[in-house]
Amino acid sequence: MIYKAPSKDIRFALNELAELPAICTLPGYEDCSVELTDAILEEGAKFAENVLAPINQQGDKGAKWSPDFTVTAAEGFKEAWQQYVEAGWVGLRAPAEFGGQGLPALVALAAEEMWCSANLAFSLAPMLTLGAIEAINHHASDELKNIYLPRMSTGEWTGTMNLTEPQAGSDLAQVRSRAIPVGDGSYKISGQKIFITWGEHDMADNIVHLVLARLPDAPAGVKGISLFIVPKFLVHADGSLGARNDVRCVSIEHKLGIHGSPTAVMSFGDDGGAIGYLVGEANKGLAYMFTMMNHARLGVGIEGMAVSERAYQKAVEYARDRVQSRAVGSPDPAGVAIIRHPDVRRMLMTMKAQIEAQRALAFYAAAALDRAARDPVASEAARSQELVNFLIPIVKGWNTEQANEITSLAMQIHGGMGYIEETGVAQYCRDARITAIYEGTTGIQALDLIGRKTAAEDGVTARWLLEEVKVTAGKLAAAGYASLAANLEAAVKDAERCVSFILETFGSRPQLAAAGSVPFLKLMGIVLGGWMMGRAALIARAQQGDEDADAEFLAAKIVTARFYGEHLLPQTAGLAAAIVHGGDSVLELDEALF
Amino acid sequence: MIYKAPSKDIRFALNELAELPAICTLPGYEDCSVELTDAILEEGAKFAENVLAPINQQGDKGAKWSPDFTVTAAEGFKEAWQQYVEAGWVGLRAPAEFGGQGLPALVALAAEEMWCSANLAFSLAPMLTLGAIEAINHHASDELKNIYLPRMSTGEWTGTMNLTEPQAGSDLAQVRSRAIPVGDGSYKISGQKIFITWGEHDMADNIVHLVLARLPDAPAGVKGISLFIVPKFLVHADGSLGARNDVRCVSIEHKLGIHGSPTAVMSFGDDGGAIGYLVGEANKGLAYMFTMMNHARLGVGIEGMAVSERAYQKAVEYARDRVQSRAVGSPDPAGVAIIRHPDVRRMLMTMKAQIEAQRALAFYAAAALDRAARDPVASEAARSQELVNFLIPIVKGWNTEQANEITSLAMQIHGGMGYIEETGVAQYCRDARITAIYEGTTGIQALDLIGRKTAAEDGVTARWLLEEVKVTAGKLAAAGYASLAANLEAAVKDAERCVSFILETFGSRPQLAAAGSVPFLKLMGIVLGGWMMGRAALIARAQQGDEDADAEFLAAKIVTARFYGEHLLPQTAGLAAAIVHGGDSVLELDEALF
Repeated sequence: MIYKAPSKDIRFALNELAELPAICTLPGYEDCSVELTDAILEEGAKFAENVLAPINQQGDKGAKWSPDFTVTAAEGFKEAWQQYVEAGWVGLRAPAEFGGQGLPALVALAAEEMWCSANLAFSLAPMLTLGAIEAINHHASDELKNIYLPRMSTGEWTGTMNLTEPQAGSDLAQVRSRAIPVGDGSYKISGQKIFITWGEHDMADNIVHLVLARLPDAPAGVKGISLFIVPKFLVHADGSLGARNDVRCVSIEHKLGIHGSPTAVMSFGDDGGAIGYLVGEANKGLAYMFTMMNHARLGVGIEGMAVSERAYQKAVEYARDRVQSRAVGSPDPAGVAIIRHPDVRRMLMTMKAQIEAQRALAFYAAAALDRAARDPVASEAARSQELVNFLIPIVKGWNTEQANEITSLAMQIHGGMGYIEETGVAQYCRDARITAIYEGTTGIQALDLIGRKTAAEDGVTARWLLEEVKVTAGKLAAAGYASLAANLEAAVKDAERCVSFILETFGSRPQLAAAGSVPFLKLMGIVLGGWMMGRAALIARAQQGDEDADAEFLAAKIVTARFYGEHLLPQTAGLAAAIVHGGDSVLELDEALF
Repeated sequence: MIYKAPSKDIRFALNELAELPAICTLPGYEDCSVELTDAILEEGAKFAENVLAPINQQGDKGAKWSPDFTVTAAEGFKEAWQQYVEAGWVGLRAPAEFGGQGLPALVALAAEEMWCSANLAFSLAPMLTLGAIEAINHHASDELKNIYLPRMSTGEWTGTMNLTEPQAGSDLAQVRSRAIPVGDGSYKISGQKIFITWGEHDMADNIVHLVLARLPDAPAGVKGISLFIVPKFLVHADGSLGARNDVRCVSIEHKLGIHGSPTAVMSFGDDGGAIGYLVGEANKGLAYMFTMMNHARLGVGIEGMAVSERAYQKAVEYARDRVQSRAVGSPDPAGVAIIRHPDVRRMLMTMKAQIEAQRALAFYAAAALDRAARDPVASEAARSQELVNFLIPIVKGWNTEQANEITSLAMQIHGGMGYIEETGVAQYCRDARITAIYEGTTGIQALDLIGRKTAAEDGVTARWLLEEVKVTAGKLAAAGYASLAANLEAAVKDAERCVSFILETFGSRPQLAAAGSVPFLKLMGIVLGGWMMGRAALIARAQQGDEDADAEFLAAKIVTARFYGEHLLPQTAGLAAAIVHGGDSVLELDEALF
């Protein structure tokens, strides 16, 4: 089950489409460069290929929970984690003042793509740890930062997010976990949390749980939720480990996929209360979670694309090896490799084109995240932040929805063999399936997109982006890429109709707007992905004359963009029709008649 | 995990859309009637709901293989099979002269939908048995029929199809299994077969394997394959069981789903040769297989739709129960049942509309199968056969591809709970996934559709069908269903463009036609499904005035048809664009650049 990091594609998306060189000029990122990034990604590729990918399939056998409330990570994971920590991979985007490397999100996410492709279940441990680092770094006191961040930035300790409770899935207003002040500045935490990724394991010395809970006098709803650090082992002032805290993993879930990632049911305070420490101010827990949300959701978008990439590679390998049936239209009865069958090629191109578009869009969003954080011109930083806000639900929702389709196509190419678990491709389908669900389902992303990200700002960012797409379409037409230009222009028109529809209906008939929200998210993903493919084609064309140009690679970029234009972009017509005309029939049927 | 047979929907599709009353007038089906069918389906619903559905989830734990080459069926399956046999369900469409009831395929398939919904893994045992009965009944000698069919028609013995070998998946020209004449009329069979559904188990006294193998002097390729009966236990002339034959199950596969259905690797002749009996003439095995293919593929199309129906029911149940988040646009912060969230409704309607369209199209094809077999007017029978031939790849391919989407939507509605195996919806996704693969992948169905079913007859049936759709669109317009009529007309135009494109290119540029084959199959599925929905709306409208009309049910049919028109039919635009303009970009990329 070989994984080969798609280094050329990653570099192209990073350097050309997300403009890494410009990101490296931002204050605080001056030490970063294309060369340094190349070196990091080259080492990262080796680690992904040689350490993480080989244990992915055995990881599918799962972590093991024991009745003493311990969890043993899947075979090989503990050793891999040790190597991962020693190589310093956790710290790529952890803050430099606490031992991290403080690199741009863009660079770190490019490395994260490789971890996710190689071993999604494993990659969630550092992903969650980085989220916890980010929350603590932004909101906790210096004292807490000094205690927790140095060990977390190395990966000696991992982090978790304890949000969900059985009655409170996406609706955190329903959180019931309690926090009682002890009087010494600490709190006693009690309650049950579910779906806690890497909530318990034996890979690291300590686990730093971030827990949402309510103080005794807290207001109801989301405005009464506070954020606490609850370590598995209490930590002395010198950083050494103390007593075991009153928190235990009472079970792990039996899931469809990502079996290597233990999904814990965590019980806090069964013996009187787990010791916890308030992060920042009381009742601001949800706002603090929102700080991390863009990064986390972008990360999940990368996950979806990354598993798709892995599945694509496996499908290509199988399609080259598997000989079956004569070539279509050929008089020669001899079987040919199935990659020569047009429908197999169509499936592979559908995968390839979407993966490239998704990578480009995700990296573009990551660059905007870096600009938003570091651009010295405040108005530019603000504009980048708006761009981030708009793009995140699209990257998260579209990449992950398509991951289901793309991994399924990979299985389809394998025929009956794909349905056999040992073949390995089924794992990619099962693993990918969670990405459209966690960190907010596609439906939640889509509501965010039409509401806070479109209607609330009167469509400014949406329209700004669509104007940019039109500029690219114009350049494509001028460059002679008539078909791609025309497909892009038609898709933009569909998108514009839909933006207008959302703006017209969101205030007056919000249910009608919401009925089209997921189709709108997909439509925007397709259009903006097409924009990236158009930009890629133009850049590839411009580079074709370079002396050291990789002619085949650049030609492939142009063919793939054209395929995207001919096969993916025309889908916007159907989506736009459903969005603009289909709302009433979504809402009409009496509930009893389903 | 309740399953409730959708009896009203089934009856509507049967009686109104597939015109069961007319089928009951065909020679040989005169004993059948709507009343008899109602009674059968009522009993069938009870059996599906009370016997098969309750053991579906435990069946997911799988059958067990033992080193003595035996397979123990999943818990409860043997007892359920016994009840199934006693109730006579195997024989619904088995020939009356051998103990079956000889009912129309239409009636039997309606019952089969319920078995598949309730327990797909279980349903494959009778499905394969019926396929074997059909092959033996059509092609074997009276002697063989008299020995095997009476016990198979009751279900005392089950049947299998042994086609695939490791090197011969879809390409049966590669079959290598050998058959050597013994001299007494029997043959010694040797070879290995894979993916043999219910190839070994402990539910029945005997298993009748149908095996493709080559005689010593057989020509190469598909013209040298013969069909043999190879029973697990030899059978004496009086029907009693004799010695164990030289055939064994050497392992069962570890699959993504349908765990309750043992998928066997069968080894024939390890101890000198399994005794087999030639069915019909030598070297005609493949042609005999084709006899069963329409029925088998239609059956798999029903499977896809049936698992979708089960997943839909589960999603509706969850969406009614699960309270989460305030209603969109509501000032009231109280959570509502998620069925009130527009995107959840959109997902449910997407499932419901497609399932109804697929059921109608599958039953329509089943009725054509009955007409083809029994219409006393030869030209009418021939026309029905052409209709069957054209519709089968569409029903098989479209229903099963959409089953992946529909079951995935059911999981999505469950959010994080859907990813937990105990919830049960993941099993539907995993089970459904095989249906687009076995009995010929969607790619194979699509090649069949554009070649033998469209180009080879110069588009006659395709165009005849599209004219019928236009007639329905005209009636819809006249009845005031302007939106559905317009959507249907636009979709037909797209379909017509594509039929012309296929006819123009299939001869001269077959690879180009093939590049669009799967999109064409999907497009035809969507259009013909829309036709069925349009017909349903017109019938519902006509019945609304009836005294005993079920007003709510009929109103729901009309809303659902409109939803289909607004959300599904507009997808044809994108598909047609890809088919007509996207072929070259499918074929262009150098193989090395994937």
